[in-house]
Amino acid sequence: MSLLVVGSIALDSVQTPFGRREEVLGGSATYFSTAASFFGPVKLVATVGEDFPEEHVAFLAGRGVDLEGLERRPGRTFRWKGRYDLDLNQAHTLATELNVFADFRPHLPESYRTSEYVFLGNIDPDLQRLVLDQVHAPRFVACDTMNFWIASKRESLLKTLRRVDMLFVNDAEARQLGGDHNVVKAARRILTLGPRTLVVKRGEYGALLFSGERIFAASAYPLASLFDPTGAGDSFAGGFMGYLARGGREDAGVLRRAIVLGGVLASFAVERFSLERLKSLTSEEIRARYAEFRELVYFDDLETALFGGPG
Amino acid sequence: MSLLVVGSIALDSVQTPFGRREEVLGGSATYFSTAASFFGPVKLVATVGEDFPEEHVAFLAGRGVDLEGLERRPGRTFRWKGRYDLDLNQAHTLATELNVFADFRPHLPESYRTSEYVFLGNIDPDLQRLVLDQVHAPRFVACDTMNFWIASKRESLLKTLRRVDMLFVNDAEARQLGGDHNVVKAARRILTLGPRTLVVKRGEYGALLFSGERIFAASAYPLASLFDPTGAGDSFAGGFMGYLARGGREDAGVLRRAIVLGGVLASFAVERFSLERLKSLTSEEIRARYAEFRELVYFDDLETALFGGPG
Repeated sequence: MSLLVVGSIALDSVQTPFGRREEVLGGSATYFSTAASFFGPVKLVATVGEDFPEEHVAFLAGRGVDLEGLERRPGRTFRWKGRYDLDLNQAHTLATELNVFADFRPHLPESYRTSEYVFLGNIDPDLQRLVLDQVHAPRFVACDTMNFWIASKRESLLKTLRRVDMLFVNDAEARQLGGDHNVVKAARRILTLGPRTLVVKRGEYGALLFSGERIFAASAYPLASLFDPTGAGDSFAGGFMGYLARGGREDAGVLRRAIVLGGVLASFAVERFSLERLKSLTSEEIRARYAEFRELVYFDDLETALFGGPG
Repeated sequence: MSLLVVGSIALDSVQTPFGRREEVLGGSATYFSTAASFFGPVKLVATVGEDFPEEHVAFLAGRGVDLEGLERRPGRTFRWKGRYDLDLNQAHTLATELNVFADFRPHLPESYRTSEYVFLGNIDPDLQRLVLDQVHAPRFVACDTMNFWIASKRESLLKTLRRVDMLFVNDAEARQLGGDHNVVKAARRILTLGPRTLVVKRGEYGALLFSGERIFAASAYPLASLFDPTGAGDSFAGGFMGYLARGGREDAGVLRRAIVLGGVLASFAVERFSLERLKSLTSEEIRARYAEFRELVYFDDLETALFGGPG
C-alpha cells in the first residue's frame, strides 16, 4: 500500500569520537524513506536548495523513492552540524542553518493524496496538519515530534495528535508530553490525547510500544561498533512504517514485528556515518539481523515444578 | 543444591519522591537470601550488632534461611542512609555507618563448606576470596562488586575474578572495569579476566547476559509504580542464583530463565519500601509475572515474502 513521508532533507556535518564527516546526506525524510524503501515504494515530500547534489537525488530515485513531491527552491539546503560524545545517546547541536527549510510549506502532488500510510516527520505541528489536510482518507497516520514543539507549540501539537494513530517519541519527550517522570504513566496519559499507539524510543536500550493496556518491550541490538547515531530514530520509523504499509495490517503481532524491524534498520544505520551503511544494506542482511534479534531475547517457559522455598 | 551467600545486613533509612522509611531492614545478603528463598534454602554469612531487631532474624529464619553463619557482635548494626530523586536509577548516599560491618571477617560454619553455589555480595574483594578459601569445591561462584572496589582495590578484585564463574555489575561498572565506553567491548574484555559469564544490569532497562560470543537481552518490567529501588540488584541476583541452585544446571537456556527470574524478583522488590513486597510475595505471583515478561517481549518470525523494495 502507498506510504507517504514528509520531513527534512539536510546536509549534515557530524563529529563523533570515531570520526567526522562534512556536508553528508541527512535529514529525517532521507533516513525514513531509505529505510522504508526496503519494503516498498515511498512518496517523499521535502524541500532542498539549488546546491543539493544531484547524486543524492539519484540515490533516492534509485531506492524507488517517488520524488515528485521534492521541491527544489532558490537558496541553500538545510544544514545541521552536531557532535556526539562517548555517550552517543545525546546529540549536541553545534549549528542549524534552516535555509530553504525555514519556509517549507508542504504541497502534495495529486498522485500523493490517496496515500494510505502517512509518516509526519519531526516538523512544525502546523505543517504536519497541513499535510493531513491534503491526504484524502489516510488509513494509518504516524508522527514524530521533539522537545521544542512540545514546549513551544503544545496546543498545535495536541491538535495534530488528535488526528494521528501513532506517535514516536523518545523517553524524555514522553515524560515532557505526558507530564510524568514515570514512562508508563506518561505513556498512558499520551494515549488519551489521540494516538491509539505510542512508541517510546530509548536509544541503545530499545523501544517500548504502548497500545491500550498492552506493552511490548523491544531490545536494541547491542553493537560493538556504533559510529554515528544520526538518523537512528528516522530509520527506525522508516523500517516500522515500510513494513506496515507493505502488509496493510496493524494488528498487535504486526506492530511488534514492525517495531523489531525498525530496530533492525536503526541498528544498521548507526554502524557507519550518514546513510553509508543503509546504502550497502541488503534484504538478506535485514532478515538475518531480525533472526538475531529473536535469538537475542528468546527464553523458554518455566518448568512446572519450580519452587522449593517456603512460598 | 546448596546455595551460600555472603554480604551485608543493614538498617536502611531511605527517601524517595514517594515517601521515606527509617531504619528498615536492608543489606545485600538480606535481599539476596529473601529472593533466593523462593526457590530453596539459603545459607547466609553476615554480621549484625546487638541492636539488630529480633523480628528480622525471625523473618529470615521463617524464609528458610540458614542463620548459623549470622554473627552477632558487640556494637551497632551497619546503617545506610540514602536518597533517590525522580531518576530512580541513581542512589545518593547521605550517610554510611559501617559499625560492626567495618571489621567483618566472614567465617563459614562447617556445614556451609560443602556449598555448591556461592554468591559473593558486594564486599571487599579480599573478603570475597577469604570466603572462597573456606568452600571446599564450589560448582558455581558468582560475585558482585562496585565502582569503589574497581577503583581502589583493582588488583585484589582481579584476583577474585580469576576464581569466579560469573560477575554481576551495572553498566557504569562494566565500562569502568572493562576500560571501554562501549558496553559490548567492555564485556568482552571482562570475559578475559576470569568469569565465563557476565551480567550487566541496566536498571529500568533490564540486563544483558554475556557468555562467550552470545548475548541475551532481558527487558525490565515497565512499572507504573516504583517506590524504592534499594535492593533491586541483590533481589535480581537472588532470584537468579536461587533458580540456578534449584536446578543444578547452568546451560544457556537455564541462564536465560534465571536472568528473567532475577528481573521478576527485582521488579517486585522495588514496588514497595525495604522488603515489604518480597514479604507478601507468593510463588504464584512470581510465575504469573514471568509469563508477563514472556508476553512483554514476544514477537513472531517474519513472513517469507517480505521485501518489496529494490533490495
